[in-house]
Amino acid sequence: MTLLSPSSRPTLVQAFTAPKGFGDQTLRDRRPDAIELLGGIPDATVLPTAEFAEATARVLARPGAASLQYSRTEGIPALREWVAAREGVAVERVLITNGGFHGLALAVQTVLERGDLVAVDNPVFPLFLRGLELADARVLPIGVGSAGLDIDELEQRLREGARPAAVYTVPEFHNPSQSSLPTAKRRELVALAERYGFTVFADDLYRELRFHGEAESVEPFHDSDHVIHVNTFTKTLGPGLRLGWVVLPERLIPDAVALRSRQDSHSSTFVQGVVAELLTGDASLFDRVLGRARDLYRSRAHVLAAELSASGFFDVAVPDGGLFLWPRLTDDRIDADRLAADASAEGVEYQRGSFFASGPGTDADRHLRLAYGDTSEELLREAAARLARAVARQR
Amino acid sequence: MTLLSPSSRPTLVQAFTAPKGFGDQTLRDRRPDAIELLGGIPDATVLPTAEFAEATARVLARPGAASLQYSRTEGIPALREWVAAREGVAVERVLITNGGFHGLALAVQTVLERGDLVAVDNPVFPLFLRGLELADARVLPIGVGSAGLDIDELEQRLREGARPAAVYTVPEFHNPSQSSLPTAKRRELVALAERYGFTVFADDLYRELRFHGEAESVEPFHDSDHVIHVNTFTKTLGPGLRLGWVVLPERLIPDAVALRSRQDSHSSTFVQGVVAELLTGDASLFDRVLGRARDLYRSRAHVLAAELSASGFFDVAVPDGGLFLWPRLTDDRIDADRLAADASAEGVEYQRGSFFASGPGTDADRHLRLAYGDTSEELLREAAARLARAVARQR
Repeated sequence: MTLLSPSSRPTLVQAFTAPKGFGDQTLRDRRPDAIELLGGIPDATVLPTAEFAEATARVLARPGAASLQYSRTEGIPALREWVAAREGVAVERVLITNGGFHGLALAVQTVLERGDLVAVDNPVFPLFLRGLELADARVLPIGVGSAGLDIDELEQRLREGARPAAVYTVPEFHNPSQSSLPTAKRRELVALAERYGFTVFADDLYRELRFHGEAESVEPFHDSDHVIHVNTFTKTLGPGLRLGWVVLPERLIPDAVALRSRQDSHSSTFVQGVVAELLTGDASLFDRVLGRARDLYRSRAHVLAAELSASGFFDVAVPDGGLFLWPRLTDDRIDADRLAADASAEGVEYQRGSFFASGPGTDADRHLRLAYGDTSEELLREAAARLARAVARQR
Repeated sequence: MTLLSPSSRPTLVQAFTAPKGFGDQTLRDRRPDAIELLGGIPDATVLPTAEFAEATARVLARPGAASLQYSRTEGIPALREWVAAREGVAVERVLITNGGFHGLALAVQTVLERGDLVAVDNPVFPLFLRGLELADARVLPIGVGSAGLDIDELEQRLREGARPAAVYTVPEFHNPSQSSLPTAKRRELVALAERYGFTVFADDLYRELRFHGEAESVEPFHDSDHVIHVNTFTKTLGPGLRLGWVVLPERLIPDAVALRSRQDSHSSTFVQGVVAELLTGDASLFDRVLGRARDLYRSRAHVLAAELSASGFFDVAVPDGGLFLWPRLTDDRIDADRLAADASAEGVEYQRGSFFASGPGTDADRHLRLAYGDTSEELLREAAARLARAVARQR
């Protein structure tokens, strides 16, 4: 006899949506020789694998095997200190995470009440919207232009009465559009946050992959108690580490640490210990790794952009950094969904621009997001040729 | 001008309580030569550090450096398959976690609605109560006796109308009391779960550390769709890995994976890859590691128990496994809180039994929880002598 049916599912979990578009595995039915330009994946050749093995051996040889033991929720001192020095913030403000997405999830859960309104990039990194489901948040799309998030549009919405609890943006090499928010606009954003009482989630995962020019300043993010600055080693030392950090304002440290300690105690001491040894055992290593990565990605970005431009089918700008191109179809008559299907048939896979819209008012559906990080120049040329053949099917 | 004060804190996060007793760092003001019997920490000498370094080198030498790249939320196939074979379950039911506590947190968040009632061990592992704050759950204490959780008491409470959404217990080498739930009682517990519609959270982190005798069966947990069986490499390969797994019933797999993917994507591919290589590269290694650990902890448990018994101040049984003793003061006139303070002054730190009560009706406050895993026999003898001196201060 069953008195009750099995426990009902929690409201929040029931509301989790199946991926539509970006991240939907059912869309994948590929040719065996398909060239995948799908994700922002670092190339294995620029990851310091040998140095990782050496650092691991050194860490494990230490008496007491501290890297295999419990450690503090905030992170191990050696790693937090390295991060704090590089960020130019007090070490107390650094919380080590299991990568950038984890940093965002902690921000969502630390700051948002269920049902809160959150202003987000439009177009937006789509997985962040799934992260927002952890708080069943409502979304207020704000346009992203050639200078990043449109702060004037945000201010207009605030003046009209919108009261977001948080604003999410990728401030440097925006995903997908590749623009960056200028330092002056960062200050304006932070001033609005302080005036209207919201928290900025600055998702800064691409900032180290700059090809040339000067980085915009992160100081506006660090000078305010209304910003969570989310960072990660994912794009530089490897996504598989699952290691990143957030720079928290002091007021949010206790809640973020309390939440984290209840979810999974702390990030792997082993991974933290190995990465800290890698970074501090040879103080110039990280910048050498970045140098190799920047050279490789710059070269790949230029090759792919040149081939796409030459076809005449795409307007494409080479970004100043990052792992994506965001070409726009020159011919408005091309059906973008049919193009994606035709490209798949030709043997090239990418993310359709339409997957990235967080609301109306963008031309995202006229774009393609092409990830070039882990694809050789030879294959990028072939991918461009396949894309051109796919467009030509509609001409 | 500030229009609004900074965002208010989420209700759930506001309700997180500061640690009282167990886990309260402010209680720690120790002598430099203090012997710490505080936590269930594996001894560094039985962790396979050299084998970890070798496995890491092999994994990182593979072309493509897959261990540094993204992987699936559920875990990497090699590790899930090893776990599934050892557990005797289908690989689809294995979700890799960041350790046992993370498995519990996922169980809490996957199963519980805010404010749900959860029946828990009394005495209980206190940090689980903090994990329950992730769902702002209410607690129904159920006694733990010499044969584990009191299933008769649980059934009585259910008959009286209590309707917990989940029941939490440590079924093998219960923390703190060291008893184990017999296989027949496991079947009764599962039958109640199926009848009354609750989910059992079986927190089985000590089961591999058996000194002698036969383990109780885990089949009742695996045969039911009303059990989440929470496991970890924490006590066997090292807490610092932050690596464990849950065996889920099929009905809960989609929700648990959906939740996990929104929180931190997946456990470190690097840690998973290294541990999978360690376990599969030498198929007998894990059992050799366990053999060394069991010998060491058995010996330490016997030494500490013998010394405590000899003092006459404690009733103490040597458990069949695990990492703790749970001695009871023989003299009811001893003030247990004063004893803890006097012990600290003598130079020995432990967890007071009173920290473990989840409700009235136990004699937990007459007990001490002594962790012996990472303390040498010489220091355990010294610790027993210091404890005896601390008791003698009240005689």
